[in-house]
Amino acid sequence: MVTKNIALRLMYVGTDFHGWQVQKNAVTVAETLERAISGAVNHPVRVVGCGRTDAGVHARVYIANFRTNSKIPLDRLPLAINARLPHSIVVTKATEVPADFNAIGSCLQKEYTYLIYNSRLRNAFYVNRAYFYPQHLDEQRMMQAAAHFVGTHDFAAVRSVGTDVRSTVRTIRYCNVQRTEDLISISICADGFLYNMVRAITGTLVYVGIGKLDPDDIPALLEGRDRTAAGPTLPPDGLYLTRLWYHEDIGVQTAEAIPIVPTL
Amino acid sequence: MVTKNIALRLMYVGTDFHGWQVQKNAVTVAETLERAISGAVNHPVRVVGCGRTDAGVHARVYIANFRTNSKIPLDRLPLAINARLPHSIVVTKATEVPADFNAIGSCLQKEYTYLIYNSRLRNAFYVNRAYFYPQHLDEQRMMQAAAHFVGTHDFAAVRSVGTDVRSTVRTIRYCNVQRTEDLISISICADGFLYNMVRAITGTLVYVGIGKLDPDDIPALLEGRDRTAAGPTLPPDGLYLTRLWYHEDIGVQTAEAIPIVPTL
Repeated sequence: MVTKNIALRLMYVGTDFHGWQVQKNAVTVAETLERAISGAVNHPVRVVGCGRTDAGVHARVYIANFRTNSKIPLDRLPLAINARLPHSIVVTKATEVPADFNAIGSCLQKEYTYLIYNSRLRNAFYVNRAYFYPQHLDEQRMMQAAAHFVGTHDFAAVRSVGTDVRSTVRTIRYCNVQRTEDLISISICADGFLYNMVRAITGTLVYVGIGKLDPDDIPALLEGRDRTAAGPTLPPDGLYLTRLWYHEDIGVQTAEAIPIVPTL
Repeated sequence: MVTKNIALRLMYVGTDFHGWQVQKNAVTVAETLERAISGAVNHPVRVVGCGRTDAGVHARVYIANFRTNSKIPLDRLPLAINARLPHSIVVTKATEVPADFNAIGSCLQKEYTYLIYNSRLRNAFYVNRAYFYPQHLDEQRMMQAAAHFVGTHDFAAVRSVGTDVRSTVRTIRYCNVQRTEDLISISICADGFLYNMVRAITGTLVYVGIGKLDPDDIPALLEGRDRTAAGPTLPPDGLYLTRLWYHEDIGVQTAEAIPIVPTL
């Protein structure tokens, strides 16, 4: 009986779940997925996810791996799992990976994208899909500020206290701000993220966008390591996991983790 | 005390409502809107809507009018109403209109758009926003069939029996089918629509798309006036009211109702 390590690529709308990680008394993505995979392969399953997204956070792409001795052909496994999933979670690919592959440990870097709907009036179709912020945001100022987040820095000032971490130093590869009409999207790529780091960086960029902070305040803000000096932690429903990098060919980016690039 | 006739432009996501029209024991868009307007203008209000969309059907644009003697400035009325609305309904404009303006009677023509997500696997972000249909659809065949719906015809074959109508003859200005990757959108513009007409025409186009009907079957299908000969009535969540035409300048199309145009 050969045990295989299987990487699943999936997507999910986070609105109906209490985040990724299995919890007592709360419906989570991981638990829902485990139940569906178990039904498809006919034995209990534990998944390892590429990240612990919070309640309400979405994943346009996500990788989770699990072990099985099932003989289901891999090209049929997504459909078999999806038949047991709510429609807000969709498995889009199944690939066999080496035994030592781990969805979080093998991940080279990730990109999150935060969407802000910046208009005087709400858009009904963006409820739970973007953060509504009616006061005008100057995206040029936000782009200038975003450049200061790129590189290797201590990001304690944009970290919500949660679980302990060995170090609050991370490397941001790029931090891009783009406006398309009323929608501002902020994409942040890093080798790893602290708790609420993206939502706190984007909240800080909002403060810059309304003139409450200056772009050139950012370096001192980071050096100060003081959470209260930075902007607010924005709500989860504008946040999406959007890109993933691995060495293995599992349906996401396979290129070597890209080096630090200047923000456009 | 001067009574004004006010036209509101709005949008709504239909998922949480039992359609437009006020019903006992069901939350509808009209009732929710009436309650919010009444709160804003401080007296009971009845709205006239431009169409009776079914439960689950969306409106990217919608016009409703009501009468009031309130002195609230019109440019502040949308915000005052929105403060009392769930976020799935948004009023985007308020215009004073002549006393004889009626949202349904003054409407020259309407466009509905139906979205089909035609891919092997679902897209979690399209739940309740598009109709998932995995079997491959040939949009070229669908375009050929769509051309046969254009013009003045008896559309009894694509009408669900509902309330009585004087005549089942309507004039379709255009019936366009377009594919952008996995999303097929079907836009139908007419001077008026029978009950479930768009959902039945798109269901018929799906039958053409999978080869169950031929494009050239459509004229005889219409002449036969037999609902069972046409395709199924597709679910409501792919359907959007997308464009409206009026003489009055109320934030939607004001051009004269366009003449019959050939389907591109």
